[in-house]
Order: sequence, then structure tokens, then C-alpha cells
Amino acid sequence: MLPLVKAAIARRHELVVEDLPEPTPEAGDALVAVRACGICGSDLHTLQHTERFTEMADALAMVPAAGTGAGFDPTADFVLGHEYAAEVLELGPETDGVAVAPGDLVVSIPVRLAGTVIQPIGFSNDTLGAYGERMLLTAGMCMKVPNGLDARRAALTEPMAVGLHAVNRSGIQPREAALVVGCGPIGLAIVAWLSRRGIEPIVAADYSPRRRALAAQLGAHEVVDPRAEPAIEAWRRIDGLKSLVIYEAVGVPGLLDRVMADAPPHARVLIAGVCMEPDTIRPMVGVLKELDLQFALGYDPLEFGDTLKAIAEGEIDVAPMITGTVGIDGVAAAFDALADPERHVKILVEPGGPTTPDPV
Amino acid sequence: MLPLVKAAIARRHELVVEDLPEPTPEAGDALVAVRACGICGSDLHTLQHTERFTEMADALAMVPAAGTGAGFDPTADFVLGHEYAAEVLELGPETDGVAVAPGDLVVSIPVRLAGTVIQPIGFSNDTLGAYGERMLLTAGMCMKVPNGLDARRAALTEPMAVGLHAVNRSGIQPREAALVVGCGPIGLAIVAWLSRRGIEPIVAADYSPRRRALAAQLGAHEVVDPRAEPAIEAWRRIDGLKSLVIYEAVGVPGLLDRVMADAPPHARVLIAGVCMEPDTIRPMVGVLKELDLQFALGYDPLEFGDTLKAIAEGEIDVAPMITGTVGIDGVAAAFDALADPERHVKILVEPGGPTTPDPV
Repeated sequence: MLPLVKAAIARRHELVVEDLPEPTPEAGDALVAVRACGICGSDLHTLQHTERFTEMADALAMVPAAGTGAGFDPTADFVLGHEYAAEVLELGPETDGVAVAPGDLVVSIPVRLAGTVIQPIGFSNDTLGAYGERMLLTAGMCMKVPNGLDARRAALTEPMAVGLHAVNRSGIQPREAALVVGCGPIGLAIVAWLSRRGIEPIVAADYSPRRRALAAQLGAHEVVDPRAEPAIEAWRRIDGLKSLVIYEAVGVPGLLDRVMADAPPHARVLIAGVCMEPDTIRPMVGVLKELDLQFALGYDPLEFGDTLKAIAEGEIDVAPMITGTVGIDGVAAAFDALADPERHVKILVEPGGPTTPDPV
Repeated sequence: MLPLVKAAIARRHELVVEDLPEPTPEAGDALVAVRACGICGSDLHTLQHTERFTEMADALAMVPAAGTGAGFDPTADFVLGHEYAAEVLELGPETDGVAVAPGDLVVSIPVRLAGTVIQPIGFSNDTLGAYGERMLLTAGMCMKVPNGLDARRAALTEPMAVGLHAVNRSGIQPREAALVVGCGPIGLAIVAWLSRRGIEPIVAADYSPRRRALAAQLGAHEVVDPRAEPAIEAWRRIDGLKSLVIYEAVGVPGLLDRVMADAPPHARVLIAGVCMEPDTIRPMVGVLKELDLQFALGYDPLEFGDTLKAIAEGEIDVAPMITGTVGIDGVAAAFDALADPERHVKILVEPGGPTTPDPV
């Protein structure tokens, strides 16, 4: 009989902690022990609006390159968690020649190749996500965490890679300016990469003083509370001349229209915020200013690897973003706590208990 | 006392033919006799929804580079018409050294520099548009029509330049494919420029058989009636592999969302259709496919000049697009006739009577 492993299970909009049979590695799999997993805003949204996630899955199915979401049953159990660092326990069959071995701390892009089917880790009824003690990863996709980097920081690879991809996709050039609207984890990741790329000025806007302080720490030259001064005015005050790229990292209805109305002519708007509801814009505003709207999704494997390396080599310090850690029993409370942007940025789930004595 | 000139005046949503005092050239002006002026879809819209045009003017005023629309009074008279070819009658003061002389047939970008104020020709209470016998142009902005090109074809410079700009702004590359949604004058202009640039395949979609036939004549490799086959399926049938640029040249609410839903991953959508109403999209669809939405407006002086040259040298044959001509008394009826896309593409107003015996 298989050993049991504890997991926080998403079941009809609730998180329930239960024991599950340990998954058995199939061809190509690695069985891993999750050491740390970040709670992502999309996890909160998925738990609350699981049915809407199914629509998203259907939309994904219409994208041949992704083709992953079809078959998701919102009424069946699933385990969230896709921002993980984990220790390899055992390699399954057909894993000869993979670059990782038992004992290695690894990260990976959160998809598992189950036979010929691609399953998104954290959004699947079949493959467990990382809010649990054990899970299966595709061994060939695991990247060994280098340089002695700890599991907490390594778990930030995934959201930081989203920020890198957004910056890459925007094609921002050295002589352009950046305005980052929203300083949640993705907005902060964008700030960090823009800073590393030498973009100046970087203006970052958020209602939360704590998040603004983090944006400044990660490299924003000017942080602004939109209640006190419109973000675009802050940019005009300190620059106003360079070509501007606006990063929308909030994703609530109405914000895109507002960003378009505020944007200077010929601005590019990189949409990193994921607004899952239909949204209304005024196309005429886009026409009159000849705006570009660029939607961004995820990252590619190279960007993921570059991110891991940059964190491991200390080029980007993600530690300030980690504002709390919990065990599996604490996931539900952490979901509630994340509703308050003043208290938290990124909470990590540590299924095996605290991985380091770092204060957070 | 000044001579009187006949004009079709826009007055509270009606076209009224009346005599106006001939305008007197001020510093920098040329007094011209309009020979031919195209009726643009935006003219129909502006006449019907003049108040909304004022909102647009306000939006324009928020664009520093344009800054033209402020001060438009929708309840006051104005004369439409911005797609003109005209003969120079007289040069006003301070026009030494301009490149045109009385007797020259000219075209120009439809803005007039009235002192330090830029007035949009055809959308101004102060500067007359080209639905009249005489008007003022800024002499220094007039381009002499070369090569003996007739006034009818020359009047197509303006809408054809819109198409060139849309193609330029999309940045389409030789190995990419194009889908043109809507074969009104702008969609057809886009088809013509794509063809001239060697893009293949060009798929063009319109409900009207006449417009589809014109698209084929101007270079579309495949024309499709969206009622018979979705345009995107027609592209998949004959290509489906190349990177795709979709040109949205209709501009009605709901179409952008539909185009986004149909677009393949990583497509670019060039928005040349001017939807003046608020419009709803599903951002998630843009995110999942990483779409680019590029809004396009007008053209620059170089594109306008290039267009005139291409038409004058016979590189682009605009004659098939001209489906009717009227005098000033016929403008109101022409507005009605343009409601039927099967009958007409471009109707020209000839304030001085027919300029050529060409059948149209």
C-alpha cells in the first residue's frame, strides 16, 4: 500500500487538508518532495471562480500551442500550486540521462508530460499541484537549483520569470521609460527586471505603501500612490519625454480603458495583469493615440532558466518579496491574508515545515 | 463684395446646399477650386453623430501631437470633405517659394495652418471642407499632382494613404500572411498595398460580392464571404502556417472581440476600422494567445506623398474603386446611396461638374 501524503485540496471553492496516496512515478516522472511553493493570485481566483477557470481551459484548448486545459472538471478535486522548489526523491522509469538525481533541489516549468498529454501542474484533476507533500514532475524538465540557493528563494523563479517575459515581450529599449501599474508580485518582478536592464526612469504605482516601498527597493526610481497623484503625472513630472512603455499588472475590469486614456501618444501597453472578465475599452482612444496593446502570458523555458540563474547568482534579490510562510494547514488562512495587500506580497507554503530559519 | 461659392453645408445632421462668400486667402494660404472630393465613411458618421464627433475632438485635444479638435461646435455649420484634388486659383500673402502655382492640380494632407492654429479640413467650423466650389489650403503643404494624373484618381490619394500607413504600421514582413476583414475603401487600400509589397497570401473578407470582386482585382489571393466560410478558415485552408497579420477595417462594436477569438496565437491585429462606440473584449483571449493589438490613425506626409506618386505612376490602379460621381447638389443622395455596400465603394463629389468623361 502506498504511503499517504498530506495536501491542501481545492474542493468546490474550499481548501480541505486531507491525506492522499503518494503518486507513483510513471515513465519520465520524478517523485519530488515539495519544499516551498508560492501562493499566486491566480490560485485565489481559480479557487473562487473554478467554473470560470473551465471557460479559460476551453479557451486554452482553442490555442493549439497550449492545448492543455481541455478536460478540466471544476466539480472534481484538484491541488493548486505551481510556484515550487522541490527535492527529488526518486526517478521513475525511462529517466536515463536526465540532469537531476535524488537529493537535488529542483524547479521546473509547471507542466507535466503524462504520456502524450500535457497537464498543467496546479490546474489539473490528474496531476497534483504543489500544495502538498509530494508530487510528480517530468524529470527531463527539472532544473537543478544552483549555487546553494535556498528553496524559498528558488520558489520565486516562476513569478519572476513571468516578469522577465513581460519585459522581453514589450521589447523595451534602453532609451525608453517604464510605468508599472500595480506592484503585486508580477508588477514587482517587472520592476526588478527593468531595473536590471538599466531602464530609467521606472515609475511604479500602487495603493499600498508596503508594496510601493518594495518597488523602490527593487529599483523603481519613483513610486506613486494613485490616490495622491495619477501615475502618468508622476512620470510627466520626472520625465515625460522618453518613449513610454506601460506595464498593466493588475488585471481588473476598467483598468485597461483607464490606462489607454492616460497613455501618451504612441505608447505601448504591455498587459501582464490577467483580467478574466469581459472588459470595455474605447477603441477611438487607441486610434487617436496609435497605441499598441501587447498581451503577455507566462514565459519560455529559456526565460525560466535565466530567472533561476539570476536569482541564484544574487543579481535579483527576491527575499524582500517573501512576506510569510505557512504549512499545509495554513494555506486557507494564507489565502484570506493575501486579500490585504498591506500585509503580504508573497506567502510560501512549506509542506515539510520551515526550510530555513530566515525571518520573513 | 466677395463672389459666392456653392457648398454642401452640414447643419444639424442635414446637408444643405447654399452659397457662401468665397474665402479670402490669409498668410500662407492658397485659394483653390475643388475638382474632386471623395465621400468618406467618417463623413457619414460625423454628419449623423456630430455630437459624438465633439467627444472625439475632446479626445484629440488630449493628444498633444494632434491638438486640433478643441473648439468644434457641433451645432454650428461646417463643410465636410477631406479627400480632395483641387486647382490652385490664387496664392495668398507670405507664400513666396512654395512649390505650386495657379493652374496646378494639387492634393494635400487635410489640415490648414491658420496662424498658429491647426484646423482639420472637413471637420472645422472655421476652415471650409471640400464639398464646395472653393476652399483654402496651406500653400506650403500642397503637392502638385504629377504625370498628368486626373483629379478623380488624385482624390483617392487620401484614403489610399490611410491603407499604406496601416500596412507600414503593422510592420508586416515578406514571409507573413495577411487577412483583411472588411473591403470598404480602407480595406481595399490595404489589400492594394499588401499586394504591391508582395505579401502572400492575402485573404480578404466582405459580405458584398462587389467589394470582394474589387479586393480580388486589387490583389487579394482569396476572397471570402464570412456567411459562407469564416475568414480565418479560408486562411487556414489556403495557408494556415505563416505568421498572420489581421487588418480590421470595419470598426463596429463586437468585431474586435470576434477577431481576437478567431486569431491564431501570436497574431498581430492592426485596427484600421474606427469604432467610435465603447467596445467589449475578453482580455483573457488576448492573454492566452499573446496577441498584439495595434491601432492605426491617418498617415504621415511621406506616406501621403508616396501614395500620390504610386497612383500617378500607375503602380496602384484606383479607378475600379470609383463607383460614382455627383455634383454638389447630389451629395445628400450620395450619402444615402453609400449605405448600400453593393452599389458603391467610393463616390466623388465634383463641385465644378464632371472632370473627365470616364465612365464610372
